[in-house]
Amino acid sequence: MAERPTGLKATKGIELLTWGTPNGWKASIILEELKEAYGKDYTWQGINISQNIQKEDWFTKLGPNGRIPVIVDHDQGGFAVQEGLAILSYLTRHYDPDHKFSFTDPLDVSRAEQWIAWQAGGLGPMQGQANHFNRFTKEKIPYGMQRYTGETERLVGILDNHLKDTDYLVGNKYSIADIASFGWVHILRFSGVDLDAFPNLKAWWERIVSRPAVQKGTSIPQKGSFGNDQYLQRLKDDEEFAKSERELKDKIAAAKKEYGYKYASP
Amino acid sequence: MAERPTGLKATKGIELLTWGTPNGWKASIILEELKEAYGKDYTWQGINISQNIQKEDWFTKLGPNGRIPVIVDHDQGGFAVQEGLAILSYLTRHYDPDHKFSFTDPLDVSRAEQWIAWQAGGLGPMQGQANHFNRFTKEKIPYGMQRYTGETERLVGILDNHLKDTDYLVGNKYSIADIASFGWVHILRFSGVDLDAFPNLKAWWERIVSRPAVQKGTSIPQKGSFGNDQYLQRLKDDEEFAKSERELKDKIAAAKKEYGYKYASP
Repeated sequence: MAERPTGLKATKGIELLTWGTPNGWKASIILEELKEAYGKDYTWQGINISQNIQKEDWFTKLGPNGRIPVIVDHDQGGFAVQEGLAILSYLTRHYDPDHKFSFTDPLDVSRAEQWIAWQAGGLGPMQGQANHFNRFTKEKIPYGMQRYTGETERLVGILDNHLKDTDYLVGNKYSIADIASFGWVHILRFSGVDLDAFPNLKAWWERIVSRPAVQKGTSIPQKGSFGNDQYLQRLKDDEEFAKSERELKDKIAAAKKEYGYKYASP
Repeated sequence: MAERPTGLKATKGIELLTWGTPNGWKASIILEELKEAYGKDYTWQGINISQNIQKEDWFTKLGPNGRIPVIVDHDQGGFAVQEGLAILSYLTRHYDPDHKFSFTDPLDVSRAEQWIAWQAGGLGPMQGQANHFNRFTKEKIPYGMQRYTGETERLVGILDNHLKDTDYLVGNKYSIADIASFGWVHILRFSGVDLDAFPNLKAWWERIVSRPAVQKGTSIPQKGSFGNDQYLQRLKDDEEFAKSERELKDKIAAAKKEYGYKYASP
């Protein structure tokens, strides 16, 4: 059992404060990719968000929003970066000199920015609300369940459509644009959305999840049980879980029916 | 009455497709600032989102997410940019050579990115949900009302705290970081949050709203009735409106009480 973090522990290089969530994985995946590509090492600490460590003073001095992930660059005077989007930009601007995961052509730079902004402002928050209403509220609120599950479906429909003629989101090259959305697509089944209904997106997810750096990045601080692969495995292995998941799916379907939901995307 | 747009109308310079919303204002304000600072002209068309023009084929070819604002740069082969965050970046990268609204120091660049990401992923979507649950649902759903009004309060509390020692979000200089959040703060009263409770934020809002380019930018396609100033004026002028607003405030307060809401920020 790791001790509860109470402050920074490294003195050089990048230090990552994170937890095993789609937003956390943005940071741990790009750091693992940079490590594999350039030998750039980093330190990490697990910030257990259910214990609200991210709300403690030492943490909010670094990340005033009180959310993981945050990185601290000890080689830049302890400069701290919060927000997954800003972490992806910062790390590639400073530590991806060959642009293996980023772009130099100004229009490609913008294309990547657009997809990353789209994830940060759309897919992330809306799928996050789907998780909240489908799984974490005390009372089930059908309006919220169908609103956010439906919006998540609309959004991933846009990704699926964009991926019909290309393997990756920008310039047919794996990049921070893909990393930004990957984590959320990685837990799509958990969020109540059927990945099989989006075949181009599913192929993209399979392409990315098989990367060694992605496997390592999604295992920080430890391998979770929410990824699409782990979710399907658990459905097979655990009959009680499978039953409660069937009930949840029925509730989402009933909520959609109640409010006349109709899939439309893009 | 303007004709319903059916496609692009300019052939050179920047063409903006927008509507009078906080996200739309990001684009129209930076374009007005660049016009005032550099004489850079632009064309705009109003996209009435209540008529779903942004869902039509000609629009989604430019902005596949089906949301305003979108810009098209006719001087870059008709390159289209969607997402307010990406529009702010694109326009300053290409058309703010003296960095009047953007930064060159790499750490300031990151600081601006962090605040813009924070707005795009936090304040924007959460305050958007507050508007939805407080004003636009057919049935009033107390859980949603208190969840999103409360989260909006937490988020603007972070801005207010950051602004206690500085006039602007990054480098004590008005920039795209301020423009990103301004539009949402501009409708804070409409969203059910009391701007007077956040004095540093209120002073920042007053500083920005008085800029001529901001006045012009928030009048595209026409001056709205949601801004904090217009909202207060309407409370004075329109007794029926004032009464329904008092009832809404009571409902939000009751929803907060029902779920044990307690303000905590930052």
